[in-house]
Amino acid sequence: MPIQYILDLLGTGFFALSGALVANRKSKPDWFGVTFIGFITSIGGGSIRDILLGSYPLTWVADVNRIYVIIIAIVLTSVFYNQFAKLKRTFFLFDSLGIAMFTILGTEKALLFHVNPLIAAIMGMFSAIMGGVMRDVLTNEVPVIFRKEIYATACLAGAVVYLLLNHLQCNRNLCLITSVLVILLIRIVAVKYRLALPQVKRDT
Amino acid sequence: MPIQYILDLLGTGFFALSGALVANRKSKPDWFGVTFIGFITSIGGGSIRDILLGSYPLTWVADVNRIYVIIIAIVLTSVFYNQFAKLKRTFFLFDSLGIAMFTILGTEKALLFHVNPLIAAIMGMFSAIMGGVMRDVLTNEVPVIFRKEIYATACLAGAVVYLLLNHLQCNRNLCLITSVLVILLIRIVAVKYRLALPQVKRDT
Amino acid sequence: MPIQYILDLLGTGFFALSGALVANRKSKPDWFGVTFIGFITSIGGGSIRDILLGSYPLTWVADVNRIYVIIIAIVLTSVFYNQFAKLKRTFFLFDSLGIAMFTILGTEKALLFHVNPLIAAIMGMFSAIMGGVMRDVLTNEVPVIFRKEIYATACLAGAVVYLLLNHLQCNRNLCLITSVLVILLIRIVAVKYRLALPQVKRDT
Repeated sequence: MPIQYILDLLGTGFFALSGALVANRKSKPDWFGVTFIGFITSIGGGSIRDILLGSYPLTWVADVNRIYVIIIAIVLTSVFYNQFAKLKRTFFLFDSLGIAMFTILGTEKALLFHVNPLIAAIMGMFSAIMGGVMRDVLTNEVPVIFRKEIYATACLAGAVVYLLLNHLQCNRNLCLITSVLVILLIRIVAVKYRLALPQVKRDT
Repeated sequence: MPIQYILDLLGTGFFALSGALVANRKSKPDWFGVTFIGFITSIGGGSIRDILLGSYPLTWVADVNRIYVIIIAIVLTSVFYNQFAKLKRTFFLFDSLGIAMFTILGTEKALLFHVNPLIAAIMGMFSAIMGGVMRDVLTNEVPVIFRKEIYATACLAGAVVYLLLNHLQCNRNLCLITSVLVILLIRIVAVKYRLALPQVKRDT
Repeated sequence: MPIQYILDLLGTGFFALSGALVANRKSKPDWFGVTFIGFITSIGGGSIRDILLGSYPLTWVADVNRIYVIIIAIVLTSVFYNQFAKLKRTFFLFDSLGIAMFTILGTEKALLFHVNPLIAAIMGMFSAIMGGVMRDVLTNEVPVIFRKEIYATACLAGAVVYLLLNHLQCNRNLCLITSVLVILLIRIVAVKYRLALPQVKRDT
């Protein structure tokens, strides 16, 4: 099993876990609701990317292992909800690692379809954030990307770094690791110093 | 016309009708709003299934009969709204029959794409519930699947029964009828005895 | 560059601008939120149409020019927000022109896939309105098509006029201009005289 596949499965599991945590916070969730939200959060971004690219079969439709990983993650979240809910820092790190991995793997996949690099960066970002957007729409919340500190923008920046290094014909592992680190770094700095993108100026 | 096609059209019409009823309950719906919601409720689940499987052309895009059925159903609902709104039991039965049919037909279609049985069951369930999920998102309600008694879970259970019987090489009609009955039975028992899935345990 | 392509780019830019204006009205939007909403509003309708038809590659995935147009439109909106927000009449006109163009171009594209004319009209209308529907769902508003004066219905009417003229083998430019004018006219009359579709009759 190549390392990339393992990382991808780990990202899948983590997103399911984070979706299940959010669903659990809602009032009176039953097992199905939590599982459904965890599932959509996990496979939503990659599905949107694959559908937009016309990349069939979709990753999770072709590979049932992802479903097993998602089910395990959701059972773990539901059983250890109280323990998990306390580990805010750990979760922040995993979440950031998850979106970083998904962004770069999504960007790489888009490049296989010979799209313009700008489109590839958008596809990478979509892979990372669209699962969360769908989770928020389904639970009737304003999508997280409109509330949080620099989040999707970090993904875009990482994708651009990847594309630059790739254009300079860097070794693939170097491209991947550097750009994942860029995303992680931006997220950590943004949260630590409460940085946010400037709001659009306007009169009241 | 094969019996399966007629059942499929009936299911389509019924979903349009149930979507139009929900839209009508909202304040000040105009004819377009009601028709749009009825349409999305009716073709949403099958469209999601077909897009996820990459099954082109989509069922309703290839077959305009479905559109006629939907239009008739919506006109009937709007004209006889007050009469229909009273028939709660009848509607519950039709709704349950509708999701049961859509689940099994969706599961069968997914199997044609040689996906893992677990994926086929998910596709069957998506065919049945996603139209309703889209209806609820568009009308700004928390999706019904997070509120109701055992609903999507009944679809999943029926799909699993179908797959088991199919694996045992049962006659197709037997598979179909048994698994539809399983879904109906679970729904009726769940509603009669107000059964619900257990909530996820947690403090607070 | 054919005139149709230029009109299409103009429509794309205008939809981005209208999406960004709506996002700006929301409290505390940052640059990413505004850009994301403008982007989705602009490419949402055409993407839905292409995905439903199975028309790959999607228009904006194959042609990065659209992305440049969207970015320019969003920067302009954000910089000149206060000026733009006053030009209500101008915007109404551009918005109407935008949905009219998108409806007819969408209908034409659907016909290339040899679908039933009724399906082609639905695809045309979806091209025009679905970006706005997605914008409203993402910003947690009730979709505009359920609130406004005759809007989507004007698109449908224009598409039907186009299909009739096309069936009568009219010259393409004549079909296009006439049906765009029909949509514009319906919109202007509807807004001027506050016309709306009748509500569905019912007891309280």
